[in-house]
Amino acid sequence: MDKKLHKLAPNTSLVGSFITQLSTPLPVIDEDRLENNITRVQSYMDKIGKAFRPHIKTHKIPAIATRQAEAGAQGLNCQKISEADVFADAGFQDILITFSILGPEKLEELAVLNGRIDDLKVVADSATTVSGLSGMFGGKDKALKVLVECDTGGGRCGVQSAAEAFDLACLISGSDGLTFGGLLTYPKTDGELETEAFLSEAIGLLKARGITCGIVSNGGTPSLFNAHLVPSATEHRAGTYVYNDRAMARAGHCSLDDCAMEILATVVSRPTQTRAVIDAGSKALTSDLLGFDDFGYVVNHPEAVITGLSEEHGVLDLSKCDPDKRPQVGDRIRIIPNHTCVVSNLVDQMVFHKGGVITRVEPVAARGYVW
Amino acid sequence: MDKKLHKLAPNTSLVGSFITQLSTPLPVIDEDRLENNITRVQSYMDKIGKAFRPHIKTHKIPAIATRQAEAGAQGLNCQKISEADVFADAGFQDILITFSILGPEKLEELAVLNGRIDDLKVVADSATTVSGLSGMFGGKDKALKVLVECDTGGGRCGVQSAAEAFDLACLISGSDGLTFGGLLTYPKTDGELETEAFLSEAIGLLKARGITCGIVSNGGTPSLFNAHLVPSATEHRAGTYVYNDRAMARAGHCSLDDCAMEILATVVSRPTQTRAVIDAGSKALTSDLLGFDDFGYVVNHPEAVITGLSEEHGVLDLSKCDPDKRPQVGDRIRIIPNHTCVVSNLVDQMVFHKGGVITRVEPVAARGYVW
Repeated sequence: MDKKLHKLAPNTSLVGSFITQLSTPLPVIDEDRLENNITRVQSYMDKIGKAFRPHIKTHKIPAIATRQAEAGAQGLNCQKISEADVFADAGFQDILITFSILGPEKLEELAVLNGRIDDLKVVADSATTVSGLSGMFGGKDKALKVLVECDTGGGRCGVQSAAEAFDLACLISGSDGLTFGGLLTYPKTDGELETEAFLSEAIGLLKARGITCGIVSNGGTPSLFNAHLVPSATEHRAGTYVYNDRAMARAGHCSLDDCAMEILATVVSRPTQTRAVIDAGSKALTSDLLGFDDFGYVVNHPEAVITGLSEEHGVLDLSKCDPDKRPQVGDRIRIIPNHTCVVSNLVDQMVFHKGGVITRVEPVAARGYVW
Repeated sequence: MDKKLHKLAPNTSLVGSFITQLSTPLPVIDEDRLENNITRVQSYMDKIGKAFRPHIKTHKIPAIATRQAEAGAQGLNCQKISEADVFADAGFQDILITFSILGPEKLEELAVLNGRIDDLKVVADSATTVSGLSGMFGGKDKALKVLVECDTGGGRCGVQSAAEAFDLACLISGSDGLTFGGLLTYPKTDGELETEAFLSEAIGLLKARGITCGIVSNGGTPSLFNAHLVPSATEHRAGTYVYNDRAMARAGHCSLDDCAMEILATVVSRPTQTRAVIDAGSKALTSDLLGFDDFGYVVNHPEAVITGLSEEHGVLDLSKCDPDKRPQVGDRIRIIPNHTCVVSNLVDQMVFHKGGVITRVEPVAARGYVW
């Protein structure tokens, strides 16, 4: 543990010290912003009467999922079997894996997982995936719940029409070892009307055949506060909201002051009047642009632009900064990442703080698994 | 170990089985291409009479560095103290950290490291960095070797002129606890003439003052085979050459057949005639574009274009593929990444194979350290 984060002392000894005492590059999480993000979204979901299912991909930390559950969340969303496995170890009993599981090795793991938690659910959008699931779960004591993934405009996975959703739901219902669990979509941002139209049509077709949808699961953080515009959905899934990032602020979901994650970096070089180089590169910030032209928002030097990243260096253009206030070699830089979820995936531990004082260091427990 | 890669058996049991039996997404390394990359570059460096110093950032695996040394490499290049620490543990005695080390915690670690290996070297491009190093090493039994980092056109770190290099070299020579080790540059691709001009001018200024450069270190993989055009350089550093990637093939350093790393993925969805979705996203491939418009080269479906990545999904446009040969749900995809070094940084272990048969699974030993 000690070497992973801090080379001189065990991490437990960090609690109570200041984040400014730690070497960089280092992502840190503001506890107050984290708590506020959790309660703000949960209160909205409570108000509109939808179940809220947090996606753990953003933090991969059981202690945070526990807090999300205490706040009122119902169940968890995972993207990988290994993630579900880690959170099952932590005692979570209602897990939805929003991924089409294929291949003997993954199916076998899925069967083990279905045996050890109360309520496991997966998705499928093809007959191939359904037949693989049925091949594994057919004849087993406990059936596997399968939701039909629908492409309501997101352009990723999912059946393309309500009619296709109906057909696949019938196939699942008729497949040995499987139970039809409902419908799921990963919608496009601000696509609430298309999503509602698709889902309500599919629900109608199924109802006419006497098939009910246990769950109708909508998702996404960017336009999360429009979830009430999708009345057919019984639940909403979101991950990024818990930390928030520059892309979520741009989308209008939050302000930059709601971003709980910052990456702390240090200026290691000032080769010219307008160039600074920091010790955070693509191995600390990731190269995710998400439509931005630069690689993060510099909180304490907003006019500075992170124009390029190499693996362990970030190059900043300071030409828009006040010449008298440009950061010097040794100065600290605070960066809100474009995309917080991929930063979590780079580090084995995450440092939390309250007003700059370290409160805890959590292992990013579900990181590092290939699948 | 077992859960990190394979959920059903310890990794040692993988040796001898086929990579096609492993679940995806999974990066794998072709042993023959790896060996060929190592010997091809080492032979060239031997032929032009330059010392070759491999950068371990690309693989972070001591066993590969050992092979690079057996082939004739002299010393190692690391980018982080933690990397140097891991390779010092593995017995390497000549390590150059090409980074300006700042801050009490890192300086203390650097002092420990300087005590435990024969020949540690770091770089500096500012008086601030030099004074921090001198503050830590002044009065110690063993001085620290410091090279002056020069910006010969790369536009990252480094002093901007031969005159600045001369001044900083004099400062280092006169600093308690430090020895001037020479000059270093991370040059721009195909910038050999500018690099030679800068270095030879700086060497001349220093020689006139009776200061000799122990090492003059040039670097980079893209135009590595032009290293002979920089006669002033005594050594060359490179990392990416060992695996190679799509960007190195585009740069003309190698062909796609020299790329030792492939990411294996599986088609999990075929929502439309022209869209496939695979189980490799930005958490498996990274978002590094390096000037490309898409996220990797699909070896077994070259007409397929990886147009977008979410965290665990990659979206492929199949419209240019023969309609009769488009990959179906469950089919395997082989991807050469745009940038191999950042992929190594995502996984805790790396699978090696010869002709598809697994030869070993190496821990990516220097991964996961913050600094």
